[in-house]
Amino acid sequence: MTHYAVPLDDMRFALFDVAHAEKLYQRLPGCEEASRELVDAVLEEAARFTEQVLAPLNQTGDEEGCHFDPSAHAVTTPQGFKEAYAQFVAGGWSGLNAPEAYGGQDLPESVGALVKEMIDSANVAWGTYPLLSTGATDALLQHGEEWQREAFLKPIVAGRWTGTMCLTEPHCGSDLGLLKTHAEPTDKDHYLISGTKIFITAGEHDFTENIVHLVLGRLPGAPAGTRGISMFLVPKFKVDREGHMGERNAVQCGAIEHKMGIKGSATCVMNFDAAEGYLIGPAHRGLHAMFTMMNAARLAVGIQGLSLIERAYQNSLLYARERLQMRALTGPKYPDQAADPLMVHPDVRRMLLTQKAFAEGGRALVAITATLADIVLRSAEKAERETAEQKLSFLIPIVKGMLTEVSIECTNHAMQIFGGHGYITDNGMEQLARDARITTIYEGTTQIQALDLLGRKIFQLQGVGLKLFLDEIGAFCQHHAGTAAMAEFIAPLSAKAQEWSVLTQTVGKAAASNPDELGAASVDYLYYSGYIVLAYCWARSVAAAESGSRSDSFKEAKRRTARFYFQRILPRTTAHAGSIQAGAASLMAMPDPLFG
Amino acid sequence: MTHYAVPLDDMRFALFDVAHAEKLYQRLPGCEEASRELVDAVLEEAARFTEQVLAPLNQTGDEEGCHFDPSAHAVTTPQGFKEAYAQFVAGGWSGLNAPEAYGGQDLPESVGALVKEMIDSANVAWGTYPLLSTGATDALLQHGEEWQREAFLKPIVAGRWTGTMCLTEPHCGSDLGLLKTHAEPTDKDHYLISGTKIFITAGEHDFTENIVHLVLGRLPGAPAGTRGISMFLVPKFKVDREGHMGERNAVQCGAIEHKMGIKGSATCVMNFDAAEGYLIGPAHRGLHAMFTMMNAARLAVGIQGLSLIERAYQNSLLYARERLQMRALTGPKYPDQAADPLMVHPDVRRMLLTQKAFAEGGRALVAITATLADIVLRSAEKAERETAEQKLSFLIPIVKGMLTEVSIECTNHAMQIFGGHGYITDNGMEQLARDARITTIYEGTTQIQALDLLGRKIFQLQGVGLKLFLDEIGAFCQHHAGTAAMAEFIAPLSAKAQEWSVLTQTVGKAAASNPDELGAASVDYLYYSGYIVLAYCWARSVAAAESGSRSDSFKEAKRRTARFYFQRILPRTTAHAGSIQAGAASLMAMPDPLFG
Repeated sequence: MTHYAVPLDDMRFALFDVAHAEKLYQRLPGCEEASRELVDAVLEEAARFTEQVLAPLNQTGDEEGCHFDPSAHAVTTPQGFKEAYAQFVAGGWSGLNAPEAYGGQDLPESVGALVKEMIDSANVAWGTYPLLSTGATDALLQHGEEWQREAFLKPIVAGRWTGTMCLTEPHCGSDLGLLKTHAEPTDKDHYLISGTKIFITAGEHDFTENIVHLVLGRLPGAPAGTRGISMFLVPKFKVDREGHMGERNAVQCGAIEHKMGIKGSATCVMNFDAAEGYLIGPAHRGLHAMFTMMNAARLAVGIQGLSLIERAYQNSLLYARERLQMRALTGPKYPDQAADPLMVHPDVRRMLLTQKAFAEGGRALVAITATLADIVLRSAEKAERETAEQKLSFLIPIVKGMLTEVSIECTNHAMQIFGGHGYITDNGMEQLARDARITTIYEGTTQIQALDLLGRKIFQLQGVGLKLFLDEIGAFCQHHAGTAAMAEFIAPLSAKAQEWSVLTQTVGKAAASNPDELGAASVDYLYYSGYIVLAYCWARSVAAAESGSRSDSFKEAKRRTARFYFQRILPRTTAHAGSIQAGAASLMAMPDPLFG
Repeated sequence: MTHYAVPLDDMRFALFDVAHAEKLYQRLPGCEEASRELVDAVLEEAARFTEQVLAPLNQTGDEEGCHFDPSAHAVTTPQGFKEAYAQFVAGGWSGLNAPEAYGGQDLPESVGALVKEMIDSANVAWGTYPLLSTGATDALLQHGEEWQREAFLKPIVAGRWTGTMCLTEPHCGSDLGLLKTHAEPTDKDHYLISGTKIFITAGEHDFTENIVHLVLGRLPGAPAGTRGISMFLVPKFKVDREGHMGERNAVQCGAIEHKMGIKGSATCVMNFDAAEGYLIGPAHRGLHAMFTMMNAARLAVGIQGLSLIERAYQNSLLYARERLQMRALTGPKYPDQAADPLMVHPDVRRMLLTQKAFAEGGRALVAITATLADIVLRSAEKAERETAEQKLSFLIPIVKGMLTEVSIECTNHAMQIFGGHGYITDNGMEQLARDARITTIYEGTTQIQALDLLGRKIFQLQGVGLKLFLDEIGAFCQHHAGTAAMAEFIAPLSAKAQEWSVLTQTVGKAAASNPDELGAASVDYLYYSGYIVLAYCWARSVAAAESGSRSDSFKEAKRRTARFYFQRILPRTTAHAGSIQAGAASLMAMPDPLFG
C-alpha cells in the first residue's frame, strides 16, 4: 500500500510565498476573512481528513471498483467511499468555495485548489464525485435562475446531492457539435430530454439521495453544430420550484465502464428517456455556458495530475532510501550494509528529482493560476479582472495539458524506481500510473488543450495572454537582473522567453498560409511552453524562498531542485522547438493508403 | 477487441531487403537450407497460427488472468492458453531455432525473431511461456553436459517440458550479488537447492507435465557477491540420467503475483526446499553462464516492445480512419459526412507516424541485430564472428532499452487516439499499454541497459562496438554520398554520427575523473544513441526500398515515414545531448535529507 503525507509546508510556500495570497486575500472582496491563520487551520483540517479517511481507501477502491446492478440501475461504490463522503459533508468541505448565500464557506479558489490536491493525492477516484458537484455549482451560479439556485444549488453545496456533466455521446467526444440528445418543450416550464450520454463520471452512485445532471442537448429547430446546443438540468428525482423532491425522473444508468484506472469512480452510460429537465441559461448557448466552467474544470484535472506526481514521488523516495541494491559508482557509501540504497545511483536521483521538480514546480504553477482565478472572480477592478482573465485563459491549457502529461511520466518514473515491485498490484505504484492515464484524456485531451493554446489563445486572441505572461517574466528577470544568486536562472529564463516569442511568430507566419501548420506544431508547442512556464515557476520559487523567512535547508532544496530543472529538464525545449520548426509537411503529405 | 494482422510484407522487407538475410543464410553453416521459399512458408504458417490461435486469446487472457490453488500449489492459465500451446507444439514451433540433433529445426535466429514478433503481437502474455524455454535451451546448449542435454533439452525442444530462469529474490533484483539461495552437495551427482525466488515467469502452469528451472544459487564456501554464484538445473519432477521422469521434486509455487499487465503470464514465487538439482557449467560461474544467454533474452524483450507497437499502431490506424470527429483545420475534407475522420488532424497523424516509424524502424533494427546473432552463432570465420559479436553486444542494450521505452510511448499514443474509448477495458487498447509497461523493467531495467551500454560496452570495452557501428554508418553515408534522393537522410545522419562520437568522448572524459558522470548520462545517452541507430535503420530502409523491386507506393511510404522520423523524431537527440552535457552535478549535489 502506498503512503501519503500532505506536503503542508510546500503548499503554504506555494500559496503564500510564491503566489502572495495573503496580501491578495486582504484586498479581494469576500476574501478579507481568509487570514493566514484561518487558511492554515483549513489546510491542517483537510490534511487530517484526506490522510486519515481518504488515503486508506485508495487501493481498496481500486481493487473493488464500482458495481452495477442492471435490474435496479444502481451503482454501489467501493466499501468506505459512501461513509467517507458523509464525513466530507459533515466537515463542511462540500461548500468550501461556494457563496455563503447558498450555504458555502466562500473561501478562495486557491485554497480550494490546495484542498483538492490533497483529496486527489489521497484518492483521485473518490475525488471525482465532489469534483463533478463543483461543475454543477459553477453552472448554477453563473447561469441558473434564482429559483434554480435555491432548489438545486443549496442541496449540492450542503453535500446532500451531487452533480454531473453530461456531454459525451457514443459518436461524439471532442466534437460536441455532433451531439444528438434532444429536448422537447412542454406546456409547463420544463422540457423532456431524450438521448444517451456516455463516460458520465458519478452519473449514478450511492452517496446521496439525489443527483443533478447538467445535460447538453438540442432544442427543436436548433442550428446544427455547436451553435445549436442548450444546457439542461435534469435531476434523478424530480424537484419542483419550491425545491421539494418528488418522483423518480426518466433518467437512469444503463451500464458502468470497466476502465484502466480510477476504478472507484463510477463512469456511467446515462439514458434519458423523456426525462424532465430545466433549461439553464439561454437557448442554444449551452456550449458557451459549459465553456465558462471549463477553466475551473481543466484546472481541476491539472491538479489531479499534480496530486498523482506528489504521491508517486513520496513513495518512490521512501523506496529509494530503503531498498539496498548495488554499490555507488564511486565506491560503497554504506560498506557495513549488504549494498547501498538506491538513492546513491545517479539515474534514480534523476527520476526522483524529475518528480520533485514537477510536483513542486507544478504546485507553484497551480497556486499562481488559482490566485488568478480568485482575482477574476472577485476583484473590484474591472481592468485587473480582465488582465487576470487573459493570463488565466492562457495558462489553463498549459496547466491542464502539461501537468497531466508529466503526471504520466512521473508515475512511471516512480514505478521504474520500484523495479519489478512497481509492476505488482499490491505495492500500489502501478495504480498511480493507471489513474494518471485518464488525465490527459478527459476534460479535453492534450490535443484539444494544445489547439486551445495555439489556435485560440495565441492566434484567435492575438496572443494577448502570452504577451502578458512574457511581460511578467520580463519584469521578473529585470527585477532580479542584479542578483548574483539568481543569475543561473535569470539568464536562461530570459533567453527562453525571447526564443518562445520568436518561435510563436514563426509558427504564426506558417499557420497564416496553412492552418495545418498550427495543428502540426500544437502539441510540441504545448510542451515547449509548459517547460518554460515551469522554469519561470521555479525561478520565482527560488526568489520567494530567498526572500522569505524559510530555513537554510528549505532554501537550499529549492535552489538545487531549480538547478536540476534548468540543467536537466529545460533542454527538452530544444527537441520540441526542432520538431515545431520542421513543420507540417512530413505529417500531411503522406497519402492515407500509405499509412499501411 | 483489438485486431491483429501480421505485417508479413514489411517483415520480409526487414529480413531480406534491409538485413540481406538470403545471401547470409546461403553462406552460414547450417543455414544453407533456409531458402527464401522455405522462410516465406514458415512465416506464412506462423502468421496463420498467431492470427488465428493466439490473437483471439489476448484479451480474454488479460481478463481472466492466471489462477493459483494454494492447496495444490497449482497454477491454471487462462482458458485456451493450454490448448494453444498444444497446437504450438504440434506445429513444431517449440524447436524452431534448436539444433536438429536435439529435435529442432535449426532455423536462423533472425527467422525466429520475426516469428517471435508475431507471437508477441498476437499475445505477449502467452508468448512468455515458450520464451522462457528458449532461455533454458540456450543454457543447456552452451553449458550443459551431454547427458543433461539428452535428458532435459530434448523434451524442452519437443515442447513436452518448459523452462524457467530463477534469478530474482525478494531482496535482490538488479543486484544478483546479494542472492541467498544455496546448494548443498550430496554424495550423489546432484545438489540440494534451498531458497525463495520471486517474479519467476512460467514458474508453474498447466501446459506441460514437467518444468525445468534454471536456478542461481551459492555453493558452500562460495565467494560473496557475483563471483560466488552457480547455476543449477532443478526439475519440477525429478529426472534421472537416462531421462526418466520420477517423483515430485521439493520445489513448488507459493503464490502468483497480481500485476498491472501480462496477466495471462504466471509470475510465480518459487520455494526450493532442498530440491534436487544438477550443477550446470563450472561452480561459481553461474552469472557468467547467465550472461551468455542475456543477448538472446534482451533481444527477445526488445521484440516484445516492437510487437506491442505494431499491434497498437494497427488498431489506432483503423480507428483514426473510421472515427469521425471535428473538421480538418483547412476545411471539411468529407463535407457529405457529419465530420472528418481523425486522420485529417495533424497531431493524430503525428501520433500514427510516430508509431509507424518505431514499428518499421524497430523491425529493421531487430532484423539487423538478429542476423548479427546468426553470424555469431554460425559463421565459419572467427574474425567475422568476433566483429559481429562486438556489434551485437553494443546493439543489444539499445534494442532492449529503446524498443521497450518507445513501446510505452507508442501504446499510449494509440490509446490517446482512441480518446476516452482508449481508457475502456473492452476496447483492448489500455491492455497494450499495461502489457508494454513490464518491458522496461524485466530482463534488466532501462537503467541497467543504459549502464551496460555506457559503462560496459563503451568504456570498459573502449567503445569497440560503437566504433564498428560508426564505421558502418560512415561507409553507408559514403556509399550514398552521391545519391541525390538520399541526401535528405545522409547529411543529418552523418552529422549526428559525428556528434555522437564527440559526445561520447565528452562523457568519457568527465567519467574518467568522476564515475557518477557515467550514471548521470547513461539513460539520456541510451535514448540519444537509440534515436541515431534508428535514423540509420530508416536511412538503410529507404536505400533498400529504392534498390529493390518494391512497388512505388511501398517506396514512397518508406521515404515519407523516414522523412517524418528525421524531421520530427530525430530532434529529440538535442534534448538528450543537452541533458547529458549538463552533467552529474545537479543530480549528486543534493543532500539526501533535502529530497523531502
